[in-house]
Amino acid sequence: MPDIARLCIIGVGLIGGSLALALRQAGAVGSVIGVGRSAANLEEAVRLGIIDSYSHDAATAVESADMVVLAVPVGSIRPVCEQIRDHLPADAILTDVGSVKADVVEQVRAGFGELPARFVPGHPIAGTEKSGAAAAFPELYQGRRVLLTPLQETFPEALAKVRRMWESVGAEVETMTVEHHDTVLAATSHLPHMLAFGLVDSLARQQDSDEIFRYAAGGFRDFTRIASSDPVMWRDICMHNGPALLGAMSRFEEEMAELRDAIEQGDSDRLVEIFSRAKAARDKFAG
Amino acid sequence: MPDIARLCIIGVGLIGGSLALALRQAGAVGSVIGVGRSAANLEEAVRLGIIDSYSHDAATAVESADMVVLAVPVGSIRPVCEQIRDHLPADAILTDVGSVKADVVEQVRAGFGELPARFVPGHPIAGTEKSGAAAAFPELYQGRRVLLTPLQETFPEALAKVRRMWESVGAEVETMTVEHHDTVLAATSHLPHMLAFGLVDSLARQQDSDEIFRYAAGGFRDFTRIASSDPVMWRDICMHNGPALLGAMSRFEEEMAELRDAIEQGDSDRLVEIFSRAKAARDKFAG
Repeated sequence: MPDIARLCIIGVGLIGGSLALALRQAGAVGSVIGVGRSAANLEEAVRLGIIDSYSHDAATAVESADMVVLAVPVGSIRPVCEQIRDHLPADAILTDVGSVKADVVEQVRAGFGELPARFVPGHPIAGTEKSGAAAAFPELYQGRRVLLTPLQETFPEALAKVRRMWESVGAEVETMTVEHHDTVLAATSHLPHMLAFGLVDSLARQQDSDEIFRYAAGGFRDFTRIASSDPVMWRDICMHNGPALLGAMSRFEEEMAELRDAIEQGDSDRLVEIFSRAKAARDKFAG
Repeated sequence: MPDIARLCIIGVGLIGGSLALALRQAGAVGSVIGVGRSAANLEEAVRLGIIDSYSHDAATAVESADMVVLAVPVGSIRPVCEQIRDHLPADAILTDVGSVKADVVEQVRAGFGELPARFVPGHPIAGTEKSGAAAAFPELYQGRRVLLTPLQETFPEALAKVRRMWESVGAEVETMTVEHHDTVLAATSHLPHMLAFGLVDSLARQQDSDEIFRYAAGGFRDFTRIASSDPVMWRDICMHNGPALLGAMSRFEEEMAELRDAIEQGDSDRLVEIFSRAKAARDKFAG
């Protein structure tokens, strides 16, 4: 008998859809019901074998589930929790996949009136710049890290079951505090997205932007790939991880001020020092 | 008979080495002599079939050449020109592959005492984060753009021969002014490199940097690939395209100030506007 009998995925996009596909492939789930607003996307998800059935009503969809995964944009967590609070079975486990954690925890607390002891905040560090159920694929989590940020209130058996779920799809699970998660992700994910969006937008706003992009090479293509990400998802991340993101932006601005100063002064030793330290760190990280 | 009888490549790294390999494969060159300081690198280049022979002395190496390609870092252009000025045959064509053009033109002018009429400033927009002869491969220029920035003094037949050379290795050649080149490349190449180096360095300098990098995902890997580039080459580009680069950095800082303001104000419409414009431009460019 699979570890999860009846899975309910609220938000059947790249992240939720890939999780469902991978769990099915691993034999770790019985049936899967999807919840969403777009009938076209949900029909596609059924056709692709991601979900068995779907509903536009989260409240009824969760009623028979033993595992509920919130895979909606982080801006929608609270209203979804308000919808399901009186319908979620007492022994069902609730988890999410949001890129920010402090804000999601507060939304869940507000949506339920109190923090459910079977809620396990989670974040799979995986994804592409694509979105929608059609982009889902079962290998997405192979070898990727999933960060769980359990709270004082979290039941250990709920944490254990969510951990098993992610491990069964090939992920490496680690736990950390909510605050640490948000600081680290601001630095390694949210800030780079701001830089890529900002760079491409600043070029796009120039008069001769078409010509400028014509002369961009492969390095630029790699560098700006993440600027193709979903604008609404990133709006939500900015709106819901503002303090940590602004802190990361400030540290980056200090670095760029130092770099600017070195260029203005023609300080070649300092430039080599900065570039060499960066190269060593990048080579070690990617090595 | 090949278009180029005797090619002299000064600086047998990724760029110069790949050009030599590609010209040989295209049958567009007779013999190739390489010039450099590292005997190990030059021996490797002979072994890999990139060059036929080599010399550590640029002056004697150019004496029998009809095409000389300066593929040294942009900081070394002037001293090399001083070495070859009394040895370059009168009818030999000289070109370069530097990522900056105004400064290279001034170095060539200073090195020769006047601008040689057979000097054609050039810049292939191609490369990887690797360096050295061992990284060279003949397909590097296939479908890539090469920008030539001829000057008033440049002989049309010299320009035509350099154009043929690049076209024979599969590149698309375009001409533009020196100033326009430097502005466009500052925006699309030099600035992104500063952002990638700056981001990785600012993380590397943090106490818990090893842990931070552990949680970085695929987007971060792509975004920071160019931070693995050669620090000395990028020092030279900063030192030799300072004004255009500082201008591009200023425009970027204005964009980031706007983004910061939108995050601080919680201005979700403005965030979506910025991210959507960036995504549309990136999708169009990469599409």
